[in-house]
Amino acid sequence: MGELNTNLGVNFPRGFKSAGIYAGIKKPGLLDLALIVSETPASVAGMFTTNHACAAPVHWSKQVVNCGTAYAVIANSGNANCLTGEQGIRDAERLAELVAERLGCEPIQVVVASTGVIGVPMPMQTVENALPKLFENLTEGDDRATADAIMTTDSFSKRASLEIATPDGTVRLGGIAKGAGMIAPKMATMLAFLTTDAEIDAPSLQACLRRVVERTFNCITVDGDTSTNDMVIALANGASGVRLSGQGLEAFEEGLYRVCEYLAKRIVRDGEGATKIFAVNVVDAESFDQARQIARTIAESQLVKTAMHGGDPNWGRIIAAAGRAGVPFDPDQAHLTLQDVPVFANGRPLDYDEQALVERLQTEEIEMTLSLGMGHAQATFWASDLTAEYVKINAHYRT
Amino acid sequence: MGELNTNLGVNFPRGFKSAGIYAGIKKPGLLDLALIVSETPASVAGMFTTNHACAAPVHWSKQVVNCGTAYAVIANSGNANCLTGEQGIRDAERLAELVAERLGCEPIQVVVASTGVIGVPMPMQTVENALPKLFENLTEGDDRATADAIMTTDSFSKRASLEIATPDGTVRLGGIAKGAGMIAPKMATMLAFLTTDAEIDAPSLQACLRRVVERTFNCITVDGDTSTNDMVIALANGASGVRLSGQGLEAFEEGLYRVCEYLAKRIVRDGEGATKIFAVNVVDAESFDQARQIARTIAESQLVKTAMHGGDPNWGRIIAAAGRAGVPFDPDQAHLTLQDVPVFANGRPLDYDEQALVERLQTEEIEMTLSLGMGHAQATFWASDLTAEYVKINAHYRT
Repeated sequence: MGELNTNLGVNFPRGFKSAGIYAGIKKPGLLDLALIVSETPASVAGMFTTNHACAAPVHWSKQVVNCGTAYAVIANSGNANCLTGEQGIRDAERLAELVAERLGCEPIQVVVASTGVIGVPMPMQTVENALPKLFENLTEGDDRATADAIMTTDSFSKRASLEIATPDGTVRLGGIAKGAGMIAPKMATMLAFLTTDAEIDAPSLQACLRRVVERTFNCITVDGDTSTNDMVIALANGASGVRLSGQGLEAFEEGLYRVCEYLAKRIVRDGEGATKIFAVNVVDAESFDQARQIARTIAESQLVKTAMHGGDPNWGRIIAAAGRAGVPFDPDQAHLTLQDVPVFANGRPLDYDEQALVERLQTEEIEMTLSLGMGHAQATFWASDLTAEYVKINAHYRT
Repeated sequence: MGELNTNLGVNFPRGFKSAGIYAGIKKPGLLDLALIVSETPASVAGMFTTNHACAAPVHWSKQVVNCGTAYAVIANSGNANCLTGEQGIRDAERLAELVAERLGCEPIQVVVASTGVIGVPMPMQTVENALPKLFENLTEGDDRATADAIMTTDSFSKRASLEIATPDGTVRLGGIAKGAGMIAPKMATMLAFLTTDAEIDAPSLQACLRRVVERTFNCITVDGDTSTNDMVIALANGASGVRLSGQGLEAFEEGLYRVCEYLAKRIVRDGEGATKIFAVNVVDAESFDQARQIARTIAESQLVKTAMHGGDPNWGRIIAAAGRAGVPFDPDQAHLTLQDVPVFANGRPLDYDEQALVERLQTEEIEMTLSLGMGHAQATFWASDLTAEYVKINAHYRT
């Protein structure tokens, strides 16, 4: 597999163009409207927020994914079109119609995504007026503007692409993502759009995307708040002429994992107020779900997050968080390492050089591994630390 | 029902004595060992942490509660006797034996509770040496020292007592509690001990305690971290000569609710770094469990906690947190009030005077009510706000 290119995203695969412009939803100078277009009809797959108060574009785009084929993704920042009632539903559909008219496809072949303020109607006239400019800006070249136009509280854009050699032939994969708090103030959300020129039928693409998202975008936390607008979309347009199946599909899935893992970790690193990212590995569990549940509880524990911020090897908080995850396990069988230093085993703390470990925790990436001694499954969750800056950002956001 | 007396706790009911001393577990000058004794055998009930990494005294005291009768509670602060292996189990049992010898009862009639550092063996000789002094200090009078001796990171002691007139006669009820973080650093936990001179059989007392705890101590959150050592114990010694049943028991349960609600809210108010307490009422739900699940998710949301800290009427975060609680509900049917001001209804934000509401949020006690429009059940969760001070306390606790 090739090197990950972090300076190009959705435009890397053949047959895709994209654009990002200032439409007038946000303050002047900030890009706020993005479009990704495939030259030919693409298989489409999607994973969506489980939030019961989900936004209008989520309702719409689920239907697009159910139908299996898409030509485009239109995404805006600055307005979430969430908790906007019936009007919001009509606005999301209207956006798809406007794009479909210009592309000569059906509205149900256009994915719609939004992120931004909750509870404010979409400025539809503003968006409609900006559409000609959006289409004029479509390019096969640099897609930085596309990635920038979906940002809200993000401090940097997130792109990755990869060439994947498979037994069926070589295909290209690219993606962009945004996210900084799971749902920041009334802003933000996690969005990711992935393109590939591989030929993959929609059900296979969906199965592949689901497995990868479960271990990447569904294994990160900034503040534990699942947004109303979260969406991961994959488009496969077949422009490479390479049809994937069997081992070819497996190689593609590996590549998809690499791109998604990179983008997911970048979201955590961009977490509001974050100074560090820490990985929680739970190994020797009975099942992936149990391993992830424990990893998630540790990763979301305020006490663990603050300890990581301070560089405090406070293993007691980690074991205690594991204990309240709702998954039975025996602390007497558990082992814990922090930065590869064993700190706890068989129900008791170990002798370790505290000062040396404190020093090893003064770094931007921390790793901990908890072995449950129960089976062979494992999961990794990535989290940001909890800082006074996070509180500052979120306590006084609107004042 | 009488007035709540917050200057007397477990010693208010007849036939109880208690003491709190400095035994040498903590730094000199800090009380660290408490004893509550009933003159006669008391019915005992208990509710315990659900943490799978629970401490040795939890294992022991569950057995005491299963047997149904107790003479005493011995509790220490400064050491949790948690993740201390087989030795910890033996130490908890030995503590019960030492107290039982002096009282002339069985060890299985002595509740043991601990709170403090995790993973350090109990200094058993220190505790044993202090026992004569502990028994000498037993008093029927002021129980401030008893309440102080179970404190860890608490900044004030928590006591309440009440006289309850029931159709069966008048009985007395008292309690003490501690807690500041659900599990602070390697310290802290939530403990509560309740005494009454009513005569109540153990199964009735247990049923009553369970119902009350579900709606009080199990409806509070500081940081969402359930401790390894949490315990609520109730002793009923019958010294009033009043045997409760039927309506008498119902009146008692009301009184028990009042005392527990008071103590629970005091724990939240004493939350690490907390400047405010906010109550999340979820009403018109299909069941209490669903209402509590939504209330808890809102109360534990970092984004809601920081908004409450900043006095920001950020209703979008509240609805979004409700949406991810895992309980189906329809935002189009939901209503939300903040400090009695309606801010959201039927899926849309309402017009309200933002500045006036911001001013109403500049207070130590905030109340929000979310109606789901689905049924007749309700629940209230109490939470502290999330502050930069919390991060400071917990990031650098040991450095």
